[in-house]
Amino acid sequence: MKIMDFYLKPIGIIHSCFKEKFGIPRQAGLVSEARAVLKLLPPYHQEAALNGLEAFSHIWILFVFHASLTHKWKATVRPPRLGGNRRIGVFATRSNFRPNPLGLSCVELEQIEKTKGNLRLHLKGGDFLDQTPVLDIKPYLAYADSLPNARCGFAQEPPRSPITVKFTKQAAAYCAKRENQLPSLKRLITQMLQNDPRPAYLSTMTPEKKQFANRIFDFDVKWCVEDEKIVVMEMVEGERL
Amino acid sequence: MKIMDFYLKPIGIIHSCFKEKFGIPRQAGLVSEARAVLKLLPPYHQEAALNGLEAFSHIWILFVFHASLTHKWKATVRPPRLGGNRRIGVFATRSNFRPNPLGLSCVELEQIEKTKGNLRLHLKGGDFLDQTPVLDIKPYLAYADSLPNARCGFAQEPPRSPITVKFTKQAAAYCAKRENQLPSLKRLITQMLQNDPRPAYLSTMTPEKKQFANRIFDFDVKWCVEDEKIVVMEMVEGERL
Repeated sequence: MKIMDFYLKPIGIIHSCFKEKFGIPRQAGLVSEARAVLKLLPPYHQEAALNGLEAFSHIWILFVFHASLTHKWKATVRPPRLGGNRRIGVFATRSNFRPNPLGLSCVELEQIEKTKGNLRLHLKGGDFLDQTPVLDIKPYLAYADSLPNARCGFAQEPPRSPITVKFTKQAAAYCAKRENQLPSLKRLITQMLQNDPRPAYLSTMTPEKKQFANRIFDFDVKWCVEDEKIVVMEMVEGERL
Repeated sequence: MKIMDFYLKPIGIIHSCFKEKFGIPRQAGLVSEARAVLKLLPPYHQEAALNGLEAFSHIWILFVFHASLTHKWKATVRPPRLGGNRRIGVFATRSNFRPNPLGLSCVELEQIEKTKGNLRLHLKGGDFLDQTPVLDIKPYLAYADSLPNARCGFAQEPPRSPITVKFTKQAAAYCAKRENQLPSLKRLITQMLQNDPRPAYLSTMTPEKKQFANRIFDFDVKWCVEDEKIVVMEMVEGERL
């Protein structure tokens, strides 16, 4: 066969609470409260194309790492869970810097919303950057896809043990204030930070008073590390300077 | 974000025993004896790119349904396991006729073979057509990918209960004759036919003496159905007329 390139078209776009790469869960399923909406694009936004999907609790999303498109691939990468200093083969990782920028995530399908000309899939547990282009949706087939006893090299267990996350009064009050609009916000932030998004080189030695910020929804979550606990300081709305 | 198309390049090509679509297992893992070799293409054929992969028992293969490229996608398809007459949404199936012709299979990684300038992954349990272009290899991560309790709609169980497969003396002798070159050939053919590759409209009513043929390796497996059992009649080598 002639070796050829393939053109692929997005069938949908993901609207996600994660507005930047920093803080995104390092695998699907790690932050169950992470909600995202996959909106089908024309000409794929046909109700018929989803018929029967509601009977599946989980689906595969094949997507494009759109924020990594200009990054040149390298044969090896440094996964954060190996401390960020050991290089392993790119095909032995789920890194977003790959020869083809394809992502694969299994998420919970909460609901299929059908409103005049719009089809939206409500997803839970995703690890998607906002505006992620989606190439395919496939049902999760436990009989073929579930291998609880697979040997998984350096990634046998979920990454790191959870770090304790505390909120200042101010930060907790912010979550309470937005509870109607953004239910479970405090839990989402807790789950996100429990996985410790710090770059590996900082995770054992973070300078005191160093502040981190994750952009989610329409605000920054500002936090720091004190006594090996993460403290959520405050949320700051508006555009980041 | 501007909606754009994406170019993807094959990173490898699969050499598989399955030479035509008819008879290919309908999902990965159903025919454990199905062996395939994934050969990396330049410039991706770098040993370093696979470093660490040997510690994983299973890997994901993201590939192109290259024999379905010219097929126009439809919003619904008729999965064989629903008898071939019920239409469901294409995104609720793993059909090869999809908006983007992307396939996803979890296979066992038997061995990584490194010989002067060639890198070959030996795979078990695949459902690949020969010459399948591969877009990505990812390690299987049980903590994220294994969901034994997922609700899986019409596909909760593997397809169909196995049908009995018998060999004529002639067919069994052929397998024995090629045992050195093609070990476990009889078991491979048994597993392949146990899944009953007949099209759904024939699976309950197959005319007597109707002959079927599956092309694998360099020969046709000729078989028919007698008393609801599959009988492997003979193998015929050489080009098919």
